Amino acid sequence: MTMRSEDRLLVRALRREPLPRPPVWLMRQAGRYLPEYRAVRQQAGGFLEMMRNPEYASEVTLQPVRRYGMDAAILFSDILVPLEAMGMHLVFDEHGPSFPVPVRSRGQVDALQDVDPDQTMGFVGEALRRTRRGLPDETALIGFCGAPFTLAAYAIEGAGTKSFAATRAMMYRDESTFRALMDKLAGVVARHLRYQVVHGAEAVVLFDTWAGTLGHEDYLRYAAPWSRAVLQELAGVAPRVLFVHGGDHLLDELVRSGVEAVALDWRTPIGKAFDRYGDRVALQGNLDPATLLASPSEVARRTNALLDEVGGRPGHILNLGHGIFKETDPESVGAFVRCAKERAR
Amino acid sequence: MTMRSEDRLLVRALRREPLPRPPVWLMRQAGRYLPEYRAVRQQAGGFLEMMRNPEYASEVTLQPVRRYGMDAAILFSDILVPLEAMGMHLVFDEHGPSFPVPVRSRGQVDALQDVDPDQTMGFVGEALRRTRRGLPDETALIGFCGAPFTLAAYAIEGAGTKSFAATRAMMYRDESTFRALMDKLAGVVARHLRYQVVHGAEAVVLFDTWAGTLGHEDYLRYAAPWSRAVLQELAGVAPRVLFVHGGDHLLDELVRSGVEAVALDWRTPIGKAFDRYGDRVALQGNLDPATLLASPSEVARRTNALLDEVGGRPGHILNLGHGIFKETDPESVGAFVRCAKERAR
Repeated sequence: MTMRSEDRLLVRALRREPLPRPPVWLMRQAGRYLPEYRAVRQQAGGFLEMMRNPEYASEVTLQPVRRYGMDAAILFSDILVPLEAMGMHLVFDEHGPSFPVPVRSRGQVDALQDVDPDQTMGFVGEALRRTRRGLPDETALIGFCGAPFTLAAYAIEGAGTKSFAATRAMMYRDESTFRALMDKLAGVVARHLRYQVVHGAEAVVLFDTWAGTLGHEDYLRYAAPWSRAVLQELAGVAPRVLFVHGGDHLLDELVRSGVEAVALDWRTPIGKAFDRYGDRVALQGNLDPATLLASPSEVARRTNALLDEVGGRPGHILNLGHGIFKETDPESVGAFVRCAKERAR
Repeated sequence: MTMRSEDRLLVRALRREPLPRPPVWLMRQAGRYLPEYRAVRQQAGGFLEMMRNPEYASEVTLQPVRRYGMDAAILFSDILVPLEAMGMHLVFDEHGPSFPVPVRSRGQVDALQDVDPDQTMGFVGEALRRTRRGLPDETALIGFCGAPFTLAAYAIEGAGTKSFAATRAMMYRDESTFRALMDKLAGVVARHLRYQVVHGAEAVVLFDTWAGTLGHEDYLRYAAPWSRAVLQELAGVAPRVLFVHGGDHLLDELVRSGVEAVALDWRTPIGKAFDRYGDRVALQGNLDPATLLASPSEVARRTNALLDEVGGRPGHILNLGHGIFKETDPESVGAFVRCAKERAR
C-alpha cells in the first residue's frame, strides 16, 4: 500500500494544511558536504558525468534522505542542463560551470535548439524514476529548473559574474534579441518541468537565482513575464515553488505570480513574511546556509528561533535561504533536520 | 577668496539643507570606463603603482570632475589599503585583488601591525592635498575606508568569494580570534579616516560592502559594534556616509548608527526610504549602475524618474547604488550628471 502523493507532508504543506510539524529539506542537499557524495563523484569522474548517469544521479539524490530522513528529495542535477541540451557547450572545472562560447547575437539565439526533453534529457526522467523507487514512501520527490532570466544570464555571460554587464547590455541595447532568447528559454523550461512531473516529480522549484540583481522596474520588464509564463504552464500540473536569491525587494511580485510557495532568501525576516503573505502562499526557508558552519548546538538554537518566529503557521516548509555550503559539517545538517522532526504543536 | 567647506553643495546636502538641486557624484567615478584613466594606469604600470603614487592618484581623482563637473571627488584608492599597511601582502591581477596568505589564526591576527597612517600611508595624505589644489573651488573632497567587517572578510578569505565560508567559520567557531581581528581593524580604520580628514577630506564614506551578506542577528553581533565604534570616533570630525551593498534588510540599523548619510543599494526604493528615514539622515543613491549600460536617453529617463521619486526632499545626494561598471559608456555618465545639474525646484 503506497502513500498517495497528496498525503505526503511536503505536498500537504504546499496546500497550507495545518500539520503537526513542518516538512524539511535543504537546497542542494545532495552535495559535496557529504563524504558519500564525494565518493560517488570520484567514481563517476566528475560533476557532469555524475549528473548524466541516472544510477549515480539517483544514488546521490537518495543519500541525504537515507542519512537524515528529510521529507523531500530534490533530483541531483544542475540548473544549466537545458542550456546544454539546447546546444551550448558546457564545461565544469574548479571555477564552476561555464560556457566557452556565450550567446551574444541574434544568430546565436536562433541557432539554439528548441529541445524536446524526452529526446535530449532522457537521463533526467530515468533518474527520477529510479529515485522514486528508492525513496521511503512518505518522502516527496521534487524536480526543478533554472528560470528564463537566470538561464539567459548564464548563456549571455558564459560564466558566473558579479555585474552581469553583458546581460544588461543586451537587455538595454538589443532588446529584441534578449526577448527572442527569453521566449525560447521559457518554452524549453516549461517543457522540462512538465517532463519531470510526468516522470515522478511531485512539486517543482523554479530557481530564478540571478533575478535578485534586478531592481523592481527591470524585474517586471525583463524577467517576470517569462517566469510567469512558465509557472502558468505548470498551474494545476504540480505545486510550484519560486526562489529568487536576494529577492526580498521583489517579494510582492513573487507572491503575485500565483505560485503555491515562495522560497525566501535568508535575509528576509520570515515572521514578517508570514504576516504579510502567509494567507496567500506557502513560505519556504530560510536559515542562512552559512550558519550551518556553526556548532550543532548553535544550529539548533537558531533553527528553533526560526521555527518560533513562524509559530507553527500553516504553509511553512523548513529549508535554508540558499544552497548548503560544501564546507558544512554533516553533524550540523543533522541538528537542523532534527529541529523540524522533533517539533510538535 | 576660497569657498568654505561647509558651503559646498555636498556638505550642505549632508546637513539636509534645502538646496536648489541635489549634489551628484558616482561611486568609483575614477575608473576604467574613462579612457584618460586607462591611459594613466598604463603609464603607471598597474593599479597598485597608480594608487601609491600621489601624482597619478590625484590625476585620476580629478579626471571625472574635469570631464563632468561632479559636485564631489572621491580619492582614488582601494578599500584594502589598510590591510596592506598592516602587513598583508596584496596582489592585483586580472581577477582583482587578493592576499596570497589569508589571516586564519590568532597568531596571524596578533602579527598584524597597528599602523600609524602618517608613517605607512603617507601617499594617501599627499594625494589628498594635491587633489584639493587641483579641484574647482565648489567641489567637495571625499575620503573613504573599508569597514571592519568587510576588511576582516577580505583578510580571512584572501580573495573575493560568494560564500564567505572561512569568515563565517571563524565567527562561529573561533569568536575570540574574530573579535581580536575586528578590534584591531576598527582602530586602524578610525585612524585612517581621521588622517584623511586632517589632509583635506571633507566627508568620509565607510564602505561595509560585504556586511549585506549577513542576516540581521549576525550583523548586530559580528559587524555593527565595530562599524559604530569607527563612526563614533569620527562624530563631529567630518560628516559620515555609510554604505552596505545589499543592505536593504539592515537599513533600520544603518540609520540607527547615527551617521549623517546612508548610501542606498539600488534595490531599495528610494522614495520609501525618504518616507521612512528622510527626517533623520541624508540618503545617497541609488541608480542601478547597470542601467548606465543603456543609451544616454534611457539613462536620463531613469535618473529623472528617480529624482521625481525623491521629489526634491532635502538630504538627497544623487549617486549610483553601487560602483560604476568598467563597461559604461562615458556618454551615459554625462547624461546622469546632467540630470542633477539641470534640476531646478
